[in-house]
Amino acid sequence: MSIVVSIPDVDKTNWWIEQLQALLPGWTIRPIHDPGDVEKVTYAVVWKPATGAFLPFPNLKAIVSLGAGIDHVLADAELPRQMPIIRTVGTDLTQRMREYVALHVLRHHRDIPAIAANQREKRWQQLVVPPATQRRVGVMGLGNLGGAAARTLAALGFETLGWARTKREIEGVITYAGDSEFSEFVSRCEILVCLLPLTVATTGILNAALFERLPKSASIINAGRGQHLVEADLLAALESGQLSHATLDVFDVEPLPAEHAFWPHPGVTITPHTASLIDAPTGSRIVAANIERFEREGSVPDLADAARGY
Amino acid sequence: MSIVVSIPDVDKTNWWIEQLQALLPGWTIRPIHDPGDVEKVTYAVVWKPATGAFLPFPNLKAIVSLGAGIDHVLADAELPRQMPIIRTVGTDLTQRMREYVALHVLRHHRDIPAIAANQREKRWQQLVVPPATQRRVGVMGLGNLGGAAARTLAALGFETLGWARTKREIEGVITYAGDSEFSEFVSRCEILVCLLPLTVATTGILNAALFERLPKSASIINAGRGQHLVEADLLAALESGQLSHATLDVFDVEPLPAEHAFWPHPGVTITPHTASLIDAPTGSRIVAANIERFEREGSVPDLADAARGY
Repeated sequence: MSIVVSIPDVDKTNWWIEQLQALLPGWTIRPIHDPGDVEKVTYAVVWKPATGAFLPFPNLKAIVSLGAGIDHVLADAELPRQMPIIRTVGTDLTQRMREYVALHVLRHHRDIPAIAANQREKRWQQLVVPPATQRRVGVMGLGNLGGAAARTLAALGFETLGWARTKREIEGVITYAGDSEFSEFVSRCEILVCLLPLTVATTGILNAALFERLPKSASIINAGRGQHLVEADLLAALESGQLSHATLDVFDVEPLPAEHAFWPHPGVTITPHTASLIDAPTGSRIVAANIERFEREGSVPDLADAARGY
Repeated sequence: MSIVVSIPDVDKTNWWIEQLQALLPGWTIRPIHDPGDVEKVTYAVVWKPATGAFLPFPNLKAIVSLGAGIDHVLADAELPRQMPIIRTVGTDLTQRMREYVALHVLRHHRDIPAIAANQREKRWQQLVVPPATQRRVGVMGLGNLGGAAARTLAALGFETLGWARTKREIEGVITYAGDSEFSEFVSRCEILVCLLPLTVATTGILNAALFERLPKSASIINAGRGQHLVEADLLAALESGQLSHATLDVFDVEPLPAEHAFWPHPGVTITPHTASLIDAPTGSRIVAANIERFEREGSVPDLADAARGY
């Protein structure tokens, strides 16, 4: 029995193979470009696999996505139909996303970009902002990550709103559901956090129409996928002052090209897709446990729904 | 009956007088340099009053400090002995300090200074940091503000330690007390937050000996008072790499002079004494309620202990 690993970065591929091998000593674990006997490969552990990457393996039982999202797997037009896709989630990843959202919402709330600019100018200026209890923050997407983020924001004192495709109940959070309540939700968010899964319906959801609907000078934080955002619309909304700031962890093209307008933009804070980074030592424990359970039971709780897209 | 207001900034003095007058219509409220009939003045509302500021008022009943600390009042060598001093605290100020500590601890934890430097260089680099559950953060001072900050950090997932002069029990926080446990506490803090009151015993507590005791590459956040920190020792510890970063809200001289070495230092983040800024609309409600209660009952729960210093 063997496992292949497919990650664009070679160093990371080797790091994951090493960590997984220590946890799964009975398995042969190899990079996807050097798989050994293709008949023996039953699992593929992947991040952004190439189109047709799975075709060489006739006995594949499941694909393991190195992340909560599966859009990067579904992007493969030659993906074997009905192939189970296992998401990688867990308390550690949820913890990291809670931290990211708390940090960057607080950063927008307390206007740290302006305070940093003042420091560069050696300017002592006491900007007055309201307490979090008078600041409305909205979270789009209330799954594992979004739900935890919304609860964390509410615990920090923010007036917290949440929106998802279907109705969710979260203590301390005012929730909205579906297309019919979307516009009302958006119109109330001074800081808007996107943690949606990437599907056909959510592609380009952060666009000019949404920005116009936000309160004047609102800000956004995108830790979903780059394809949620219409980049040109964001630049226009920052230019007009409709939006005051954007913090982006994900981009249409990653790594973000050096010539991209976002890098030097004073209204854009860039983090390099590290909101909830899966490192090999932590993530490999989750992946190994999921493979062992899938072997034993033929399924796992973190199985994605490919038809739904997440 | 009248109230005088003493704040170094003239605009702020007028803002406070306006807000307090609306809440206390039966009182005459004037700036301290133009007090009217000095015999009628029974309360002084102050931030950093001048030496001897209270001598003209023979019938003063109490001084109201516009902040949780009273060190700026006790600094007056001619302060009338036994004069009651009322601290200004409240859920709003505690909320603001929770936000500040959560924001800046998360900012150190996730290495935002390095991420910001990378953005300036257009460098896409995924820095790996542990989750908060594997990060030890310590809070010095466990009063109203420090206790709330420690609870907030624990709720965010940090391994949270706390130290105070006397033993405090806080759920989810490992607490230390007194001189005998100080060294052990400090030696465990990867990120150290100072929220101590300023007293003779705590002046200069953030010094070379403490920095040496911290784990290598630790960072500090000072939202207590500027006099807690020995500035030259901090610069030396940043230079040697013993400390990786410092976020400072308070300074020995405020506003921080334009020529100060902290302004351009890449290892120092400056906020202009706004961690828990009291704005007049919110703060005046607390001040007015305290004055009315002191009139009625001759005391208030937020009375400071001048002998203890806080």
